[in-house]
Amino acid sequence: MNVNPIQLFDSESSTFTYILVADDETSAVIIDPVDHNCERDLAHLERLGLKLAFVLETHAHADHVTSAGKLREVTGARAAVPSGCGITPAEVQLSDGDIIRFGPDERIEVLHTPGHTAGSVSYLWRGNVFTGDTLLIDGCGRTDFQSGSAHALYESVTGKLFTLADATPVWPGHDYKGQSVSTIGWEKRHNARLVNRSEEDFCELMAALDLPKPTLIDIAVPANKNLGLADGA
Amino acid sequence: MNVNPIQLFDSESSTFTYILVADDETSAVIIDPVDHNCERDLAHLERLGLKLAFVLETHAHADHVTSAGKLREVTGARAAVPSGCGITPAEVQLSDGDIIRFGPDERIEVLHTPGHTAGSVSYLWRGNVFTGDTLLIDGCGRTDFQSGSAHALYESVTGKLFTLADATPVWPGHDYKGQSVSTIGWEKRHNARLVNRSEEDFCELMAALDLPKPTLIDIAVPANKNLGLADGA
Repeated sequence: MNVNPIQLFDSESSTFTYILVADDETSAVIIDPVDHNCERDLAHLERLGLKLAFVLETHAHADHVTSAGKLREVTGARAAVPSGCGITPAEVQLSDGDIIRFGPDERIEVLHTPGHTAGSVSYLWRGNVFTGDTLLIDGCGRTDFQSGSAHALYESVTGKLFTLADATPVWPGHDYKGQSVSTIGWEKRHNARLVNRSEEDFCELMAALDLPKPTLIDIAVPANKNLGLADGA
Repeated sequence: MNVNPIQLFDSESSTFTYILVADDETSAVIIDPVDHNCERDLAHLERLGLKLAFVLETHAHADHVTSAGKLREVTGARAAVPSGCGITPAEVQLSDGDIIRFGPDERIEVLHTPGHTAGSVSYLWRGNVFTGDTLLIDGCGRTDFQSGSAHALYESVTGKLFTLADATPVWPGHDYKGQSVSTIGWEKRHNARLVNRSEEDFCELMAALDLPKPTLIDIAVPANKNLGLADGA
């Protein structure tokens, strides 16, 4: 049975936020919400009559500030985050293999997929995988800051994500070309960063990218470690 | 059972394109595709391993050119369009109550919802409604060109769409505020154009909008009547 998430887009940072709706259509979780879209996202929950059970993060983002803290405050949801990201105020610290339960019968499985950051995770729900900045459509997250590691990313993608069924829909954390969703099978065959590249080649490629420092990183990472709330809030 | 479409966005015209995936996850239809996104949309179909059964239009658009003709050519899909829109090269001319079938067991019901244009339709699939430019999130399509009629739009929305179940997800043809999906219940209670307005008040409001002529209308409408293909193509 094909069950898709609701995919929301932030045009400033090209970030995808996802709402996963339980089978009873009254409870939901949200993945990677963005601060300045908080009212928009609350309006979506209200319009659809959804009670938010969890706010999930795939990692501590460097390019935008999360609205997790604010959403938690307004909705009473719990924050669940990867344990390796230093997001200490979250109620639930997730490790590889953990299961998040919501609604009458929903299960989200946590896959630790380090590389973009050391703590990064992916989430599995109803046969979909939410890959954050680990695996993008025809790309992958950068690995040159915030405890990133090209070796770890290569291992996470080829050793973990690529072992999922080929038909698994891949919902990335960003896209910069108007794309929305891919599949594991397609990325295994076509991803330009990873296909036909040894781990060594991949690490060389990533080291040579020479990307500029993200504009927001010095603000975003500390803020995101506090769920997007100002210190002491 | 909650089954969502795949929602794709065109940032130039703020148009949503939808891919509806059949239960067997091998066949699909696409609604309101945009010309310059044709390659992107074909890549989505390829990545997801989907064979396109139909290209559907909600109306003959004035703000963008469709890729229906090109998608039909490349994929072998059939074009199905509202009969009142003058899109003569389409194989299937749809009327109110018609059913489009695809995949092992998918049914899309056609609702004639005139007002934005005389021929505009909405599509019902698995409890979702795709409203084109008839009903937008907290808004509605304009009614001042292309055989538009505020009276007809009021009747289509209040007399037809608002009789659907409150929980029905509403997937609009456009959004200009980063919103993605609403419900019939929410629009009945909150839509700023329609709530607490008589038909007469609504028609006055629409007449007073004084909107500029759409930049592309003189190119887009003739092109769209030919499925987006150049004359004679």
